[in-house]
Amino acid sequence: MNALLLVGTGLIGGSFALAARAAGLFERVDGMDANPAALAAARARGIVDAPGAAIEPTAVCIATPVGSIAEQVALAAERHPQAVIFDVGSVKAPAIRALRAQGGLPPAFVPCHPVAGSERHGADAARADLFEGCSVVVTPVAETNAAVIAQVSGWWRDIGATVTRQTPETHDCLLAATSHLPHLIAFALMEMLGDVDDATLRRAVGGGFRDFTRIAAADAAVWGDILHENRDQVLRWVEALAPRLVVEEDKAALAQRIAAARAKRVRLDA
Amino acid sequence: MNALLLVGTGLIGGSFALAARAAGLFERVDGMDANPAALAAARARGIVDAPGAAIEPTAVCIATPVGSIAEQVALAAERHPQAVIFDVGSVKAPAIRALRAQGGLPPAFVPCHPVAGSERHGADAARADLFEGCSVVVTPVAETNAAVIAQVSGWWRDIGATVTRQTPETHDCLLAATSHLPHLIAFALMEMLGDVDDATLRRAVGGGFRDFTRIAAADAAVWGDILHENRDQVLRWVEALAPRLVVEEDKAALAQRIAAARAKRVRLDA
Repeated sequence: MNALLLVGTGLIGGSFALAARAAGLFERVDGMDANPAALAAARARGIVDAPGAAIEPTAVCIATPVGSIAEQVALAAERHPQAVIFDVGSVKAPAIRALRAQGGLPPAFVPCHPVAGSERHGADAARADLFEGCSVVVTPVAETNAAVIAQVSGWWRDIGATVTRQTPETHDCLLAATSHLPHLIAFALMEMLGDVDDATLRRAVGGGFRDFTRIAAADAAVWGDILHENRDQVLRWVEALAPRLVVEEDKAALAQRIAAARAKRVRLDA
Repeated sequence: MNALLLVGTGLIGGSFALAARAAGLFERVDGMDANPAALAAARARGIVDAPGAAIEPTAVCIATPVGSIAEQVALAAERHPQAVIFDVGSVKAPAIRALRAQGGLPPAFVPCHPVAGSERHGADAARADLFEGCSVVVTPVAETNAAVIAQVSGWWRDIGATVTRQTPETHDCLLAATSHLPHLIAFALMEMLGDVDDATLRRAVGGGFRDFTRIAAADAAVWGDILHENRDQVLRWVEALAPRLVVEEDKAALAQRIAAARAKRVRLDA
């Protein structure tokens, strides 16, 4: 029997388990979570069959906050030496560095990042279709077993995702710009508006602001971890962005800049 | 017959005309636009009955880019001395200052800003329900006729909006933070990502990035004008934001900051 052990039963892990079970990849899903309420929610939704590793897992999905991925991968490799291990964290290089420093990277561990998410969180928000059409970046390294990379990549494809490979460093640099920096900005903007009372703020915002700041409602613990782990890359992009936060006195130059930025954004939806 | 003259037949003006006609406020809408294609689109959609002011208007709605509002208000006051005049611009104080400097603010002019919009633009994107549940900020000044303020405010309420009054300066300061700065950031972020090729970028973005940068697809000319007119206020908020674009080394302090920002954002939807 193919069994999945889900370590971290939140939005991303829960959605993978739902999707993978629906696709017939696993007949059984066991789950662990440091938060008993999160595990209970995942069991109540039928995402998890039993707590702990009731039977020996075929695969272990590490879906904890990024700060504990290295520790959880090492634990899984020790406890389940036959299992394929993968994670779903938003930052890749620090966990890989930590594993190498503390005794080596398990060959059966495939670092993955499904570029999906939501300002919602927890198993209650999990959806079997979260990864349909989603981009999954896989960042294997020299130690990673090639057959295991192919197997895990196949699972992602089976649940509707597109898989690409990058180095952990390229991934972390790019995602710092496209995801971590936007989150930092959205948090900083809401913090900056802390002195504006809620009623006044509500009258001053439209759909544009609501869309722009939606990610500021994301889970604080998850995002504290991500920003902390990828701090250097995020701060490099802050430095790259800062000189662009200007309004040119020259109206034509300003309009030209905006037009180029707009064209780049429009192409993203093309 | 109550007739509206629409000066600027884009998204906001077109939506006001559609909504106001549906609410029975005007039986006829005439329209003008510096761009013949925009006027043709508004006529094709039945927003505008005839070009120019075919009959003497009861009201003139100035819905041009903010850089030309003062000029258009002065023209409307000269040509249609019996008409109520209002605008829908995102920046209020500069046009008021310009009108005062060039011969006085017409008492029948009510500065308005419906806090609505879309990354779409043009009459094709106009919707009769754009202002339902929308916040409209009215910024009358000492010269403004009280009866006319009440009349224009009533029109906005009749099409579903909530009306509040602010000074032009308070409005411009607040909207610089909630709308103009987010647009500047979204444009700057897309500009910063200009060197990342489109295919790579597409694989590195999820729904969070798409929501965050949606406003970067807004009309370049409209936004060049807004940022130019409200430049000083926007740059003050850039200075307020910059020191917050940090990632604390202290993980607990970082998590606390994020939790407070998150709570502020969540309350906005409460």
